[in-house]
Amino acid sequence: MQLNQFLEDFSKVEGAKILVHGGGRGASEQLKRMGIEPKMIDGRRITDAETLEVVVGFYAGVTNKSIVSSLQKLGVNAMGISGSDGNAISGVKRPVKTVDFGFVGDLHENSVNGKLFQILLKNELIPVVCAITHDGNGQLLNTNADTIASAIAKELAKIKEWNVELYFCFDKNGVMKDVNDESSLISEIDFEFYQELKADGIINEGMIPKLDNAFEVIKSGVKSVYIKHASNVNMEIGTKLI
Amino acid sequence: MQLNQFLEDFSKVEGAKILVHGGGRGASEQLKRMGIEPKMIDGRRITDAETLEVVVGFYAGVTNKSIVSSLQKLGVNAMGISGSDGNAISGVKRPVKTVDFGFVGDLHENSVNGKLFQILLKNELIPVVCAITHDGNGQLLNTNADTIASAIAKELAKIKEWNVELYFCFDKNGVMKDVNDESSLISEIDFEFYQELKADGIINEGMIPKLDNAFEVIKSGVKSVYIKHASNVNMEIGTKLI
Repeated sequence: MQLNQFLEDFSKVEGAKILVHGGGRGASEQLKRMGIEPKMIDGRRITDAETLEVVVGFYAGVTNKSIVSSLQKLGVNAMGISGSDGNAISGVKRPVKTVDFGFVGDLHENSVNGKLFQILLKNELIPVVCAITHDGNGQLLNTNADTIASAIAKELAKIKEWNVELYFCFDKNGVMKDVNDESSLISEIDFEFYQELKADGIINEGMIPKLDNAFEVIKSGVKSVYIKHASNVNMEIGTKLI
Repeated sequence: MQLNQFLEDFSKVEGAKILVHGGGRGASEQLKRMGIEPKMIDGRRITDAETLEVVVGFYAGVTNKSIVSSLQKLGVNAMGISGSDGNAISGVKRPVKTVDFGFVGDLHENSVNGKLFQILLKNELIPVVCAITHDGNGQLLNTNADTIASAIAKELAKIKEWNVELYFCFDKNGVMKDVNDESSLISEIDFEFYQELKADGIINEGMIPKLDNAFEVIKSGVKSVYIKHASNVNMEIGTKLI
């Protein structure tokens, strides 16, 4: 139901838009049913061949097509893609250092096929991108959805006449001074203020990679970046990075 | 390995092309692993909600993205789609008469979004279509791949300057007088000859829906229809319908 509400809100967002998503709880539940225990390190899933098959089935199959068919119902001409489709997003298998993450992909400077996104958007096809990339050599790779969204935003921000905005949606209202106190929401934050808050230990651990990433996007020319609750896409509640 | 060989052959087919596929053995194996016995009536799978999820995960996810990433490796700019993507192919849930097939889709006159296929092909994106359609009301539907391929061919044959050819690929060399004797392959068959062979009980039961369907495609203006072994895509071995 939460997803349905989000999609309805998304359908009302005006202009060209792109949705990037992970796999929801479906993939984890399926892995559990199959007796495969999720192995997480630093919040990232270790992806062996068997896990990758489940992840691809959910991200690119079940979740992506459920979102696309729901958006079609809502009058949005959605087009579900993985990174392999039209070579939308290529990645490289994460090198094994202390941890072998398996079939996990990292992005590089030229990962995003900006031309493909332009073709789709100019033809009024709304890309719905799942968090799967490919290495160009036939290998699919489980890739972080925030990273993909950031990379797409950065690439499209290179087009002068486009005002690219990026919304990170999650289950909190935004960046808060006290994670348990909704009234401590920070409505605007610049890089300097962020550094202060980080130094004072006020920013929650889990938010740091999200914010580091988000400030990098701001620096690259994306007009605005927001961190918001998925329920507030069309409302002025959230944290704006400036 | 057979699939890889087929994809290599497909990559060498010249001109604009479209690949339509089902789910391979993956979906059936997964259903078995989950303790869901495949329920088939008249060769069609009864598709309840749980089965649909597995079917969508494999057809639109695992199988589709495996094909797409392999084709990308072979230099084909493949674009994997289900019927919901860009509203490519809409279907209607099969009405319940004596049998409730569940979430199985039938096609209608306006099922195929010809404009979408033209946009993709004109942008040199090669559609790889899985056998999943949608009803426009948020419901995905398990749909026969031969039916989808036929409907796409018929729709694109309406474009005057296009010479549409349709290849049905399976695990036999084509239509044979004696299914156990490769030398009895019929290399050309017209509708009259087909009727004779059918009346004489020479055509194998399983081939009848395939051929009925194929002759309907021929009548609709598709230039040629072939029934071939998946290994012989680029070879002159098979049955040509005339």
